[in-house]
Amino acid sequence: MDVSSLRALVEQVASGESTPDDAVRRLRRLPYADLGFARVDHHRDLRLGMPEAVFAPGKTPEQCASIVEELLRAPAGPVLLTRAGDEQVKAASAVASALGSGPGTVSDSGTFATVAFRQAADRPGSVVVVTAGTADLPVATECLAVLGALGFSARLLTDCGVAGLHRLLAEVDSVAMADAVVVIAGMEGALASVVGGLTPAPVVAVPTSTGYGAALEGVTALLTMLAACSSGISVVGIDNGYGAACAVARHLP
Amino acid sequence: MDVSSLRALVEQVASGESTPDDAVRRLRRLPYADLGFARVDHHRDLRLGMPEAVFAPGKTPEQCASIVEELLRAPAGPVLLTRAGDEQVKAASAVASALGSGPGTVSDSGTFATVAFRQAADRPGSVVVVTAGTADLPVATECLAVLGALGFSARLLTDCGVAGLHRLLAEVDSVAMADAVVVIAGMEGALASVVGGLTPAPVVAVPTSTGYGAALEGVTALLTMLAACSSGISVVGIDNGYGAACAVARHLP
Amino acid sequence: MDVSSLRALVEQVASGESTPDDAVRRLRRLPYADLGFARVDHHRDLRLGMPEAVFAPGKTPEQCASIVEELLRAPAGPVLLTRAGDEQVKAASAVASALGSGPGTVSDSGTFATVAFRQAADRPGSVVVVTAGTADLPVATECLAVLGALGFSARLLTDCGVAGLHRLLAEVDSVAMADAVVVIAGMEGALASVVGGLTPAPVVAVPTSTGYGAALEGVTALLTMLAACSSGISVVGIDNGYGAACAVARHLP
Amino acid sequence: MDVSSLRALVEQVASGESTPDDAVRRLRRLPYADLGFARVDHHRDLRLGMPEAVFAPGKTPEQCASIVEELLRAPAGPVLLTRAGDEQVKAASAVASALGSGPGTVSDSGTFATVAFRQAADRPGSVVVVTAGTADLPVATECLAVLGALGFSARLLTDCGVAGLHRLLAEVDSVAMADAVVVIAGMEGALASVVGGLTPAPVVAVPTSTGYGAALEGVTALLTMLAACSSGISVVGIDNGYGAACAVARHLP
Amino acid sequence: MDVSSLRALVEQVASGESTPDDAVRRLRRLPYADLGFARVDHHRDLRLGMPEAVFAPGKTPEQCASIVEELLRAPAGPVLLTRAGDEQVKAASAVASALGSGPGTVSDSGTFATVAFRQAADRPGSVVVVTAGTADLPVATECLAVLGALGFSARLLTDCGVAGLHRLLAEVDSVAMADAVVVIAGMEGALASVVGGLTPAPVVAVPTSTGYGAALEGVTALLTMLAACSSGISVVGIDNGYGAACAVARHLP
Amino acid sequence: MDVSSLRALVEQVASGESTPDDAVRRLRRLPYADLGFARVDHHRDLRLGMPEAVFAPGKTPEQCASIVEELLRAPAGPVLLTRAGDEQVKAASAVASALGSGPGTVSDSGTFATVAFRQAADRPGSVVVVTAGTADLPVATECLAVLGALGFSARLLTDCGVAGLHRLLAEVDSVAMADAVVVIAGMEGALASVVGGLTPAPVVAVPTSTGYGAALEGVTALLTMLAACSSGISVVGIDNGYGAACAVARHLP
Amino acid sequence: MDVSSLRALVEQVASGESTPDDAVRRLRRLPYADLGFARVDHHRDLRLGMPEAVFAPGKTPEQCASIVEELLRAPAGPVLLTRAGDEQVKAASAVASALGSGPGTVSDSGTFATVAFRQAADRPGSVVVVTAGTADLPVATECLAVLGALGFSARLLTDCGVAGLHRLLAEVDSVAMADAVVVIAGMEGALASVVGGLTPAPVVAVPTSTGYGAALEGVTALLTMLAACSSGISVVGIDNGYGAACAVARHLP
Amino acid sequence: MDVSSLRALVEQVASGESTPDDAVRRLRRLPYADLGFARVDHHRDLRLGMPEAVFAPGKTPEQCASIVEELLRAPAGPVLLTRAGDEQVKAASAVASALGSGPGTVSDSGTFATVAFRQAADRPGSVVVVTAGTADLPVATECLAVLGALGFSARLLTDCGVAGLHRLLAEVDSVAMADAVVVIAGMEGALASVVGGLTPAPVVAVPTSTGYGAALEGVTALLTMLAACSSGISVVGIDNGYGAACAVARHLP
Repeated sequence: MDVSSLRALVEQVASGESTPDDAVRRLRRLPYADLGFARVDHHRDLRLGMPEAVFAPGKTPEQCASIVEELLRAPAGPVLLTRAGDEQVKAASAVASALGSGPGTVSDSGTFATVAFRQAADRPGSVVVVTAGTADLPVATECLAVLGALGFSARLLTDCGVAGLHRLLAEVDSVAMADAVVVIAGMEGALASVVGGLTPAPVVAVPTSTGYGAALEGVTALLTMLAACSSGISVVGIDNGYGAACAVARHLP
Repeated sequence: MDVSSLRALVEQVASGESTPDDAVRRLRRLPYADLGFARVDHHRDLRLGMPEAVFAPGKTPEQCASIVEELLRAPAGPVLLTRAGDEQVKAASAVASALGSGPGTVSDSGTFATVAFRQAADRPGSVVVVTAGTADLPVATECLAVLGALGFSARLLTDCGVAGLHRLLAEVDSVAMADAVVVIAGMEGALASVVGGLTPAPVVAVPTSTGYGAALEGVTALLTMLAACSSGISVVGIDNGYGAACAVARHLP
Repeated sequence: MDVSSLRALVEQVASGESTPDDAVRRLRRLPYADLGFARVDHHRDLRLGMPEAVFAPGKTPEQCASIVEELLRAPAGPVLLTRAGDEQVKAASAVASALGSGPGTVSDSGTFATVAFRQAADRPGSVVVVTAGTADLPVATECLAVLGALGFSARLLTDCGVAGLHRLLAEVDSVAMADAVVVIAGMEGALASVVGGLTPAPVVAVPTSTGYGAALEGVTALLTMLAACSSGISVVGIDNGYGAACAVARHLP
Repeated sequence: MDVSSLRALVEQVASGESTPDDAVRRLRRLPYADLGFARVDHHRDLRLGMPEAVFAPGKTPEQCASIVEELLRAPAGPVLLTRAGDEQVKAASAVASALGSGPGTVSDSGTFATVAFRQAADRPGSVVVVTAGTADLPVATECLAVLGALGFSARLLTDCGVAGLHRLLAEVDSVAMADAVVVIAGMEGALASVVGGLTPAPVVAVPTSTGYGAALEGVTALLTMLAACSSGISVVGIDNGYGAACAVARHLP
Repeated sequence: MDVSSLRALVEQVASGESTPDDAVRRLRRLPYADLGFARVDHHRDLRLGMPEAVFAPGKTPEQCASIVEELLRAPAGPVLLTRAGDEQVKAASAVASALGSGPGTVSDSGTFATVAFRQAADRPGSVVVVTAGTADLPVATECLAVLGALGFSARLLTDCGVAGLHRLLAEVDSVAMADAVVVIAGMEGALASVVGGLTPAPVVAVPTSTGYGAALEGVTALLTMLAACSSGISVVGIDNGYGAACAVARHLP
Repeated sequence: MDVSSLRALVEQVASGESTPDDAVRRLRRLPYADLGFARVDHHRDLRLGMPEAVFAPGKTPEQCASIVEELLRAPAGPVLLTRAGDEQVKAASAVASALGSGPGTVSDSGTFATVAFRQAADRPGSVVVVTAGTADLPVATECLAVLGALGFSARLLTDCGVAGLHRLLAEVDSVAMADAVVVIAGMEGALASVVGGLTPAPVVAVPTSTGYGAALEGVTALLTMLAACSSGISVVGIDNGYGAACAVARHLP
Repeated sequence: MDVSSLRALVEQVASGESTPDDAVRRLRRLPYADLGFARVDHHRDLRLGMPEAVFAPGKTPEQCASIVEELLRAPAGPVLLTRAGDEQVKAASAVASALGSGPGTVSDSGTFATVAFRQAADRPGSVVVVTAGTADLPVATECLAVLGALGFSARLLTDCGVAGLHRLLAEVDSVAMADAVVVIAGMEGALASVVGGLTPAPVVAVPTSTGYGAALEGVTALLTMLAACSSGISVVGIDNGYGAACAVARHLP
Repeated sequence: MDVSSLRALVEQVASGESTPDDAVRRLRRLPYADLGFARVDHHRDLRLGMPEAVFAPGKTPEQCASIVEELLRAPAGPVLLTRAGDEQVKAASAVASALGSGPGTVSDSGTFATVAFRQAADRPGSVVVVTAGTADLPVATECLAVLGALGFSARLLTDCGVAGLHRLLAEVDSVAMADAVVVIAGMEGALASVVGGLTPAPVVAVPTSTGYGAALEGVTALLTMLAACSSGISVVGIDNGYGAACAVARHLP
């Protein structure tokens, strides 16, 4: 609940601009639009510096399209549709095109797509996304799509797993001088610890469900990253490329 | 491995300043001091912007004291001893006093202490540490001690658990306008999601082992924070107040 | 075993109305009908104030239909078929139509349906069902279908997740004044704690398997709800919208 | 956040009774007292119909006493100190006696105590607490102490585990006619399912950490209760007798 | 390694009937036939009183057929093919028919079949198989098929779950007077404890993967049965109807 | 609930020997004695062929003594106190001596004791208890004490772990010709599979918490035994020597 | 990072053969080829005595083909494609044929294939691969394919599970005299312990996901092998036949 | 069971040197000594190239001493007592001194000791033991003690954790040229992957229970090592320094 808008409202009441009933009604109705099946949070960008993203799984294509439509009614700012299937992408793109925002930029991660409508203004920070292996690319793709929508042009370093340390060491300048580093790794996730020991930048680690057997669908990498002996690494959920991009957006101007 | 110092060294060889044998030897010996039972990383502050901390558990008081002594031989910069017991604190303080650094600042968390020798210069960022309950204070104490040693003067907001939301809402300005927020919560850890929805700042969440039964010694709060519906929250290990402080130090100038 | 009916029976024996052999036989045969593959519990409504529901998974369409048929032979009261697939719904509806009860009300949750035959009389309690996100709607659909069959007309509040607290706060009157609240949330499940801190009503929390990775298919939300810092919240199994409706039915007149 | 008090406040501003600045300040300061290490929620009883309880673990005796003291400054209503050790009990009792509330009623569960100061007015509902074995008594003791403080005089049925069903069947009238039943069971926790099949009342199940080996410190009983085949059972956390009592208080007038 | 046959062999060497080389060769070659991909244990029936069963998963139809063929070359005794798919059943039946043993008795459990060739002679023990719900029937089907092949004619009691205890109590004589009872239950598995308290017979409990969410694919029922408060219950693996039948065969003459 | 005694009772009512009220009262009061904190099940021996055992943990010495005293009031049959500490043993022995039953036979397992009062008549079955290592002896001690009290004189084979198979093979006759075999093993628990492949007798496997690290306090051995490739092995809970003895008692005449 | 090549390079700089800039560039570029989506480690064979394998899952057929192509550009040495699907095999084979290396040797494990291009020279060690059951053959197939590519001609012993110990004992000479033994077992994995007690050779144990229910998709066998009472067994990940072959290659000349 | 000794025995029978009865008796009695509570395996060194070690936990000091005494009666070869407490060490040392073997070499790991009596002859292999941190030293101590007793003089590299990679890179020659490397690491265990990428030698990884919270008492490091992206690493149980030493002994001549 935003105290400064509360104060403004209260002042309007005090000055007679609003009646108490209006104040309470506006206070409770303003910040979102109720579509029946969803409450679209128009206020989120203002409050968190980050737009509301539409998480597609479990929603019908029509629901995805309606929420995207509602969000695009705001005058500006990026709108994101995440983890969407083909039908969901098609429906949302259609509605966005009809509104004149164009079909959005679709980043396909293999099993799902990220769609960005109306990219944010460019932001200056230098972001590096490092993956341990080629199989981590789908998560990196989502992360890059979201970083792009939020205004960052990140650099991707693929296949830097610790089994061949020289591949990472060859990029040590990029990593050491970045403003933020996202480390994406499955299997045993050791890359996060090593990167954490090479750079003073914020390191956001994303465990992935890459691997089989004892990789336990990402739990092993998750635990590794949480217990990392390099200090100050922070971790987001398994396969959560979206969350890592948002964490970076919180860290950088 | 720092490429720029490698380049410098290689240039010295090219210019005849060093012999190849010397180069290899220096390359491999420079950055740490080998105490036999430990390799003290004098290079870490330079490389990571953060000093090496001495993790006390499993070390004898004498080992703690020797490593602290070795680290204090560097000309400047903070030195930290973490999760130390009484005997370990006493031994390290004695050695530091003998070296003229004073006994250090001891922050007692109840079951262990954090000791900071030679605090870093003040850093400008406004850091807020929020705890869900009084029982989370030991972890907050460690976090604040490390933040202090690293140059931050953080503000502590205790007992803001979501069972009484108004207690947190009363502090909404502090939280919304901070440069970084550390959320420390046990039991179900829901506070991180709520704080994440109220501020655009980086949010570092620390699950604690507070609670009993289904709190599963911190695992429940950890999972909650990783799966948080507020985007861009990042998480460190259970009870890891030290790691949260380091993550903040990576985020802020 | 119902002591009052035992007493009645024993009195019949004492008065000569029944022979001992009859008594034992009736005692053991009365309360259910044995269909060979199932024992249909005609007694359940009387005993628990709640009808037996037919749990469809693992049953053939014919078995579903037979049990529904047997239950509809009782003179009155609702009959429920839960988690049914298309073929199971079709078979049960056909048999119910043939018995003159109509095809039942089918609530489709996407992957399965709930079918209610012969709704109970209206019951007065005001029930509110709150979901954290749109993806929790399938579980809410099941819960509402069962509440409806049991006589309640519940109000659904969707998409009130804690990432945008104001969406929930806008409904704070509904929640605070309800006779019972069902909270349905996946991912980190923090909504239950927050709702529990806003209402004196019974709060039944349903963790859902919404989310991916560290959401652990509902286990994270389950643990969160069990460890909730708001007191007096009680929890049912993952995705168990049916169980939550039954719990409400136990609480209200 | 209570909308009706918000409305009252806004009306005071509109009528000139309060200035906007005052309104915001009161809005944010009213409902709790900040003791530095804790924020005491005076508003909780009003909001939830249930007093704030002081959870003792991790608090010093002095902190326990201060919070109890602050809560007792409210004009009426019960105050609870839970899971307290000897020193904590002594400190809180002293402060309560000094305030004229008497030393409180201490219920000792073996490893910790529950202390109730100023019991609530009697409430009419008939509550039955059933335990599976003698080893579940400590949890039952906490539950009964809290029920008592909240105004209920519950009946305790001990040692009704399903290994000797007739012991439970002998009490079938009590169970079937109660207004609410709390089932407390460790080991395999099967008692909850059986009780749930015998009564139409709300059934709150409490898994306990009784047992060894495959009982997994209460996790087995917890899972059993969540997966119970009897419908409408709801569950609280492991060993959480306090939570079960609060859940009952939410259910009953 | 069977000591009595070892002794016989050694005596043959001593008496000159066998040479040492022959003895060692026979000792190592006798008890099984090596098919290249499998070693068929002709000795098992003699040693364990139970034939070797062919576990179909992971084997090609041809491999299944070859092993069944090899086993049928023994002069007598039942041969079992378990958890077989359609193609595997067809291949094995064809080979058995060709050998004059007939196509075998196929028991279809829905997702897989059990095939019994050459049933054992009738055995006298009275075995009762009790299931908690209709959804447990596939496991019961496998168990009954194996019991039948081993010579037992078991009685099946379906749908006796503890949510309606009277359904089980109606069969209390059967259960109390059986020579062995197999309890098959998913969800919370409480039926095993209750049955264990009603009969002095050996009780073999089979947890099933029936249920969803907190049933954890059978782990909940498994833990419940292992921690059962009724003494002397023993447990086999999840969904292991075959293992339960074998356990019964070990118990009875 | 015993149907034959129910029938007898009903016949008494029919014949006028009892009034209906008496019948109901006796029906509900007969089979146990209510000590307030425990319901002592005098009926258990009759019903299950096995006496009620007093599980000591969580009971005061006085409670243990009272229950033992109540059970010894029955005219005959063994009485067991399990997992008792020194004070509990002393109190129970004193009460038993005072009743003329003698102090009982105390079997000390190191951390707890099993006490048997009034041993049952000798039973003929040959029982073999095999342990994998010396560290499994405490569990074997409990198992042997209970077997002894139930009338069996079991043979103990210690230290037969599969790391030196010949140690087990040397005892192959004993194992192959036993009427029942209890296998007690910690660490990886492989002994159960091997023994199951050597004997046609019922095999009851007891996982123990012996070992460290990946032995996971018995969970590893438990899983091994449940997944054993030898068919027909059944398993009891971790460290549950008492349960294994009871399972044997169910199997043998 | 290979110190001897570093030294060579530094010497070239010292001797004027290389410039410092060249040295740094070569140092960082030499050991791998960057394909954009992958960094192909040409250096691995030299460094680890084992070629880089292409792990197919998550890669497009084109990516697989490109990496295989890049690796085949090295003058000699085996190249492996693991866990590949049909399309991936086809694409890689085509590219290898075009390069004149032939289509590779394809070993089909049922659900995936291992492809070996350019087998290594024969190596002398005698390797035995033992499987517990026929269902473990897919993992054995992968292991044998990799062993073959690395120059070993291993002997496969199938179906030696401990349920029929004599099958393993018949092969005791092979096992006891091998230079390395790979044990592949699912279900309860006890075979590793038994083999470990029969041979002085290195034993590499591979748990497989064979089995169902309590086999927990390989976790049970994994834990069994880690906790094995036979000393000196070492373990690789679940279903990791590739890893076991590599471990053998590390052990043998 | 050793086939060659079986053959020898059978030949003695054939030649009349032994009677059949003698043969069977010797066959079953020879390889161990039965102390009642333990079967001492005199045959193990011959069979496995590694002596039987006495695992002290759960044994009385007297039992430890008796087994050590029995093992020292063999004419030669090392004898090990592992994880022993003070009293156990004292008793075993006394008995060894009395037998003229001296008190043994005691390696104290802090919480337990390893005692080696009669060290084996020197073996040539170069073994390197690398630890991640000082807190892993207790496990390294056990490993070194066992390696020493088995004839190896290993080199210990402490505190080489990946947070400061240069510390490990400084030792890259030792690691790359060793005949076997033991990696001992707790927390996230990433060191094993990195070492595995630097050396062609056999790498035996030992996860330790060092660390807290998300380190999960060694499970995190264990999973990391099993899922390591460097190929051919093999793993032993948590904290199992003894097992790692035995694995090395299997690998080297």
